Amino acid sequence: MLADDGRGRDFLDAVRPGRFLFSLVMSYTETCRIPGITIAGASPDTMQFTPPADAEYLHYGHCKVIDQIPMTPDGKPTPGLLTRTALESAGIPHLAINAGGKIVPQLPFVETGLQPGRDITTEDAMTRDQLTRAVDYGMILGRRLASLADCLVIGESIPAGTTTALAVLRALGFEARVSSSIPENPVDLKNKTAGAALERLDSEKPGDVVATVGDPMIPLVAGMLCSASEVSRVVLAGGTQMAAVLAFASSMGFRKENAAVVTTAYVADDPTANFGELVQSVADIPAVAVDPGLEKSRHAGLRAFAEGFAKEGVGAGGSIMSYMLRTGNGPKEFRDAAEKEYLRLTLR
Amino acid sequence: MLADDGRGRDFLDAVRPGRFLFSLVMSYTETCRIPGITIAGASPDTMQFTPPADAEYLHYGHCKVIDQIPMTPDGKPTPGLLTRTALESAGIPHLAINAGGKIVPQLPFVETGLQPGRDITTEDAMTRDQLTRAVDYGMILGRRLASLADCLVIGESIPAGTTTALAVLRALGFEARVSSSIPENPVDLKNKTAGAALERLDSEKPGDVVATVGDPMIPLVAGMLCSASEVSRVVLAGGTQMAAVLAFASSMGFRKENAAVVTTAYVADDPTANFGELVQSVADIPAVAVDPGLEKSRHAGLRAFAEGFAKEGVGAGGSIMSYMLRTGNGPKEFRDAAEKEYLRLTLR
Repeated sequence: MLADDGRGRDFLDAVRPGRFLFSLVMSYTETCRIPGITIAGASPDTMQFTPPADAEYLHYGHCKVIDQIPMTPDGKPTPGLLTRTALESAGIPHLAINAGGKIVPQLPFVETGLQPGRDITTEDAMTRDQLTRAVDYGMILGRRLASLADCLVIGESIPAGTTTALAVLRALGFEARVSSSIPENPVDLKNKTAGAALERLDSEKPGDVVATVGDPMIPLVAGMLCSASEVSRVVLAGGTQMAAVLAFASSMGFRKENAAVVTTAYVADDPTANFGELVQSVADIPAVAVDPGLEKSRHAGLRAFAEGFAKEGVGAGGSIMSYMLRTGNGPKEFRDAAEKEYLRLTLR
Repeated sequence: MLADDGRGRDFLDAVRPGRFLFSLVMSYTETCRIPGITIAGASPDTMQFTPPADAEYLHYGHCKVIDQIPMTPDGKPTPGLLTRTALESAGIPHLAINAGGKIVPQLPFVETGLQPGRDITTEDAMTRDQLTRAVDYGMILGRRLASLADCLVIGESIPAGTTTALAVLRALGFEARVSSSIPENPVDLKNKTAGAALERLDSEKPGDVVATVGDPMIPLVAGMLCSASEVSRVVLAGGTQMAAVLAFASSMGFRKENAAVVTTAYVADDPTANFGELVQSVADIPAVAVDPGLEKSRHAGLRAFAEGFAKEGVGAGGSIMSYMLRTGNGPKEFRDAAEKEYLRLTLR
């Protein structure tokens, strides 16, 4: 694991002996229907199934709302494969939270009553009432979950979430170059989309920014971070999307000494993005990169993660960190476990 | 606290040092619309708001779906007052689970997608698919929540739940005389209602019994008990309703050495019911009665609990047990805390 500095290592040492709890925030933004913006789903119409399908796969090992686990159009698996491998291998409890998903998963989940996010190029992502609810409910959830664990790890599943994150970060004045689930990162399309959204924005207030050009995941997770960091340590498990969460949470205030962002080395090392710098500029907390070791896998479907497909998502990086801390295992053991899971899936 | 025997005391000693987690299962049965069968709500049309209002009151200290906390038609407060006093005073984390409620609470809660229970005098309480889902989701939830606590306390809020419990217990061959939220326990009406439901029943299989004459709370909590008792200790916090849960759970199997039923002395001492004997006949696990000490309260609204109004509900007994174990306090200190809460509410 590569902590950016001594502070990052201190954070990892502090959470190592404690109880981990992983939470997956399922969400949705109509922005994902813009052609070419994401491959988090086999087609525009199946995108909406990806978050609940990810949650079901983490829980059951297979999906219920769709037949197979979420795939890219050319059949590469969801990063949830890495998350499931990590959580199952290390026996880490987890739960799913619905923050504006269009489809609910077929398992018990935490409901917030939030509406799906709207297409930020054409209308506001959410009403102010929805924003308030997302922050309030996030704070309630963060407090509750933090009382049940020493380290709350928060991941997300929201197709096109990097684009809404980009818009929020830019509107709040950060030089963001976002990562993507696509190796040929459609930077131009994301910039154009974020730019169109920003044209509709007439306020620099963080709440206005998130309500106008964000998505429901951002204020919910920001609320969770604010309250949970008062009690426990919190890992934001993700890349640029979690930077947007951090930016909004910073405007409300949270305990920085109890928080870190953890992602995969594939995001941290992405030359089209600027993950480490971005986190540093947004909030002065540790940014940790975890190496899942998949570039050496025997399976092309797993090497694809290292090659830039779905480099992060479903809290993969934070889950692998939790796995490594709990088990003492490294990238080699993780790769072995991920290969077993990959084989199990391909034999179905 | 009055444990029935040494085994009950052993159970209390075993859970004392651990982490408690309280869960409130909100549910609904159309059976509550039969006039006179329950006072868990100010009128038949407000009954459906009682479970979510109880959950909101536990969380916020006030309700959102209705203006005031749930009351009987003549203004006596919900037993949730005792639950809230206990959980807040002892700092015990809690969460709400929706198992077929008609109205959802305005806070984050665990959703199961179950339908409201139907009037057992006229139709089956639920389909077999719903029964299966309730048990399956209950088992998932029990496993998840047990991994987060050493002692999982499960309470319920379902108007007319004692009547569906009565029908289930009788159908499964137990001599049940149920307690009630009404001091002049409408025994005849409950017996008549259960009798009418039992006439429609043509099977003695526990699953058929619960689907035909039960309610959604019973199979969900039974599933929770079955899985959670494999990992942690489980307290069924309630009276005769939890006896019905026990009866159904016994048909599926659970770890008896990890389970107990805990209720208030007001239920345990109710001469119209037979709580202790009933639990013994249903499953050989400890039955513990907790004395909230309210007969000496300065406030008539609190003395009413001791006088037979809403003697139990919202997991009051199990919450007070958890409070006493966590804090080392007894009935006197609990009464003081409940009086403060009562004053806070009446000053609003």
